[in-house]
Amino acid sequence: MEGADKFIPTPAIVIDAAVVRRNLDAMAAYTATHHLKLRPHTKTHKSVKVGRMQVERGAVGLTVAKSGEAQVMAAAASDLLMAYPAVDPQRCMQLAELTRTRTVRVAIDSALAADTLSSAARAAGSFIGVLVDLDVGHHRTGAQSPEDALRLAQHISKMSGLRLDGLLCFPGHIGGAPESQKPALLALDALLDEVIGLWRTSGLDAPIVSGGSTPTAFRSHLVRNLTEIRPGTYVYNDLNCVRGGCATLDDCAARVVSTVVSTAVPGQVVLDAGTKTLTSDRCGPAPDSGHGYIIEHPEAKVFKLFEEHAQVDVRECATQPKVGDRVTLVPNHICPCINLMDRVWWHEPGEAPTPLPVDARGKVS
Amino acid sequence: MEGADKFIPTPAIVIDAAVVRRNLDAMAAYTATHHLKLRPHTKTHKSVKVGRMQVERGAVGLTVAKSGEAQVMAAAASDLLMAYPAVDPQRCMQLAELTRTRTVRVAIDSALAADTLSSAARAAGSFIGVLVDLDVGHHRTGAQSPEDALRLAQHISKMSGLRLDGLLCFPGHIGGAPESQKPALLALDALLDEVIGLWRTSGLDAPIVSGGSTPTAFRSHLVRNLTEIRPGTYVYNDLNCVRGGCATLDDCAARVVSTVVSTAVPGQVVLDAGTKTLTSDRCGPAPDSGHGYIIEHPEAKVFKLFEEHAQVDVRECATQPKVGDRVTLVPNHICPCINLMDRVWWHEPGEAPTPLPVDARGKVS
Repeated sequence: MEGADKFIPTPAIVIDAAVVRRNLDAMAAYTATHHLKLRPHTKTHKSVKVGRMQVERGAVGLTVAKSGEAQVMAAAASDLLMAYPAVDPQRCMQLAELTRTRTVRVAIDSALAADTLSSAARAAGSFIGVLVDLDVGHHRTGAQSPEDALRLAQHISKMSGLRLDGLLCFPGHIGGAPESQKPALLALDALLDEVIGLWRTSGLDAPIVSGGSTPTAFRSHLVRNLTEIRPGTYVYNDLNCVRGGCATLDDCAARVVSTVVSTAVPGQVVLDAGTKTLTSDRCGPAPDSGHGYIIEHPEAKVFKLFEEHAQVDVRECATQPKVGDRVTLVPNHICPCINLMDRVWWHEPGEAPTPLPVDARGKVS
Repeated sequence: MEGADKFIPTPAIVIDAAVVRRNLDAMAAYTATHHLKLRPHTKTHKSVKVGRMQVERGAVGLTVAKSGEAQVMAAAASDLLMAYPAVDPQRCMQLAELTRTRTVRVAIDSALAADTLSSAARAAGSFIGVLVDLDVGHHRTGAQSPEDALRLAQHISKMSGLRLDGLLCFPGHIGGAPESQKPALLALDALLDEVIGLWRTSGLDAPIVSGGSTPTAFRSHLVRNLTEIRPGTYVYNDLNCVRGGCATLDDCAARVVSTVVSTAVPGQVVLDAGTKTLTSDRCGPAPDSGHGYIIEHPEAKVFKLFEEHAQVDVRECATQPKVGDRVTLVPNHICPCINLMDRVWWHEPGEAPTPLPVDARGKVS
C-alpha cells in the first residue's frame, strides 16, 4: 500500500481514480466506435459521482436494479433503466413518481408487472417505458420464446400509461475468454432477429434492444441487433474479471486494504477483512481460488473467511507478513464488497484519499 | 407472511420480538442456573435496543469485534469487550478514549497489540483490561501453548496502562449436536486448567475466563473453568443453528420477507432477495442445502443466488408460487444478512412492524 493510504482505518476499499477513468474511457471509446449506446449498470459503484463520470463520457443513461437506487441515481442522469422486474405496487409507484422529472424505463417478463406499472403510471399521470425481458439462455428471468415475448409486447402496447420501448436481454450464460464467445453471440443475434421480425410483422417496433454484461461487453458489436449495452463491473473490475479474461490486475481499480491482526498460528496470518468486507462470493471461473488476491504476497492463499477474519496460508510466501502490516487485496467480486461500505476511499494520483459515499447502499427495495 | 407485514417493501428482515425475548430469556436462565456470566456478542443484531434487552436480563456487558461497534454499544452497556485483536494505533486510541466512561477490555495474542494498547492507554491516562486470547483448537487466532499464553500474560502484566484480566477462547471447532460435544469440552477444560495453573505458579491470576459460542452455549457448564460465555447468534438463530442442532425453526426470530418477481422459466421462480440480502454464506453443516429455507414452500430449493435474484426450484412444491406472492425465508447465516440492512423490522405480536435501526452497521474498523 502506498504511503498516502497509511492512516485510513482498515479494512477499507481504496479506489484508484486514474484506473477508473481509464476503464470508463475504454468502454466509452468502444461503444462510440461501434455506434452502440452505453447505459452502465450502477450496481457496482452505487455512487452519484461515478454515475456522473459515466454520463459525462457519453452514457445515454444509467441502469439500476431497485427503485430506491433509481431515486438516488436521478441525481446523476436524466434517463434511468430499471433492469429488474417491478412487481410490487410500492416499487411501481416510486418509479411512476420519478417519471415526472426523468425518463424511466423498466424491464419486465409478466403481465402482472405490466398491469401494476400501468396502474401506477395512470395514478401519477405519467408514462413509463417498458422493455420486454427476453431469456436468451441464462434462464433466470425473461420471456421463454419469441411467441411469449410477442404476446407480452402486445399486452404492454395496449396498456395506458405504458410505452413499449423494445427488448432487454442479459447474456449472463456467455462467459469464458472474450475470443471464445463468438458462436454464442451470433446465436443470440439470430434469436433477436427472430423476435424483432415477429414484432415487425405484428406492427410493433423495438427501438431499444438492450444487452451486455462486463464479460461480453467488448464483443457486443457481434450482436448486430443490439442498440445498447449495460455493463457494470467494468468500472472497477475484480478477480472474476481477471480470471475470466476480460480484465488484467492493473484494471482492478478497487482494492481492499487490510491489516494483519494475528500471526499466532504457524504458517498462517489473519487479516481484519472477513465476509463482512470481502463477502463469501467465490471466484466463478476458479472455484478453489480462495477469497482474493494479495498484491504484496502473490504466493499467499486466503483460504478461509469468518465474519471479521481472513485466514491466509503464507507458507509459500517469499516474505512473511508481520502483525500490524497492511496488505492490499483484489477481491473475487467487487460489487457486493462496495455494497458493504458506507463509504470507500477515492484516490487521485499524488493526493491523499478522500471519502466517497456509497450513495445507493442500503436501497434494498 | 402475516397480514401486518404486507406493506413492508421487500426484501426485508422482520424480527419476531416474542421469539427474541424467549431466546434471550432462555440464555439468561441457563447462565444464571450455572453461575456463568453472560457477555453476548452483538455482531448478530448490531442494535442498541437489543443490546439493552440483553443487559436488562443480566448480561454483565456486551461483546464487539470492532472499536466502531464498541462506540455504538456504549449506549447500551457500561462494560464492553472487544473479542478481536486491536493492533492499529487508531483502533487502540478509540478504545482508550472509551475507557473514560466505560469498562473496556480487549483480547489479544501478540506483544505488538499489548504495546500499542499500552501506548494508547497511557496517552489517554486510562486503563484497558486485557484478556490473553488462547487457541483451544480452532486455529484462527490465539496463543499456541500454555507457555506462550504465560509469556504474553507476563508481558501484559508489566505494561503500564494495561490490566491483565484473564483469558479468552473461542471454541469454534466444537460443533455438531450439543449432546456430542462433551469430550471436546472436557478437553478444553483440561487445557484451561493447565494454563490457569501455570499462571498461578507464576503469580498471575485469571479472574475472567471467557468462552462460548452459540453452538456450545448450553453445554458451557461442562467447562468448569469458564466464568462467562459470549454467544451471539442465539438472539435470532438461523438455518446453521437449526441444522447444527442448537435451535429449531421456531427459534429463528429473524426472517427475510421476499417477493416473487418472475415465474417465466418453467419449474422455477425468482425472488427479489439475492446475495445483497441473503449473502453467499452457505449452510455449514449441509453444504448443498442451498440458500435458505422457505417457510411457505418447504419443498422449494433456493439453488442459486445473484446479487438481487434468488432462483428457486419449485418443481416439488405442493402449490406453485405466483408472481407478486410474498414468501418468508430463514437464511443460512443471519449475522451478515442483518449487516446488509440499514434497518430491519421489529414485530411485536399483534402490532404493525416498526423499523429497527441496525446501529452498528457499517462500523467496519
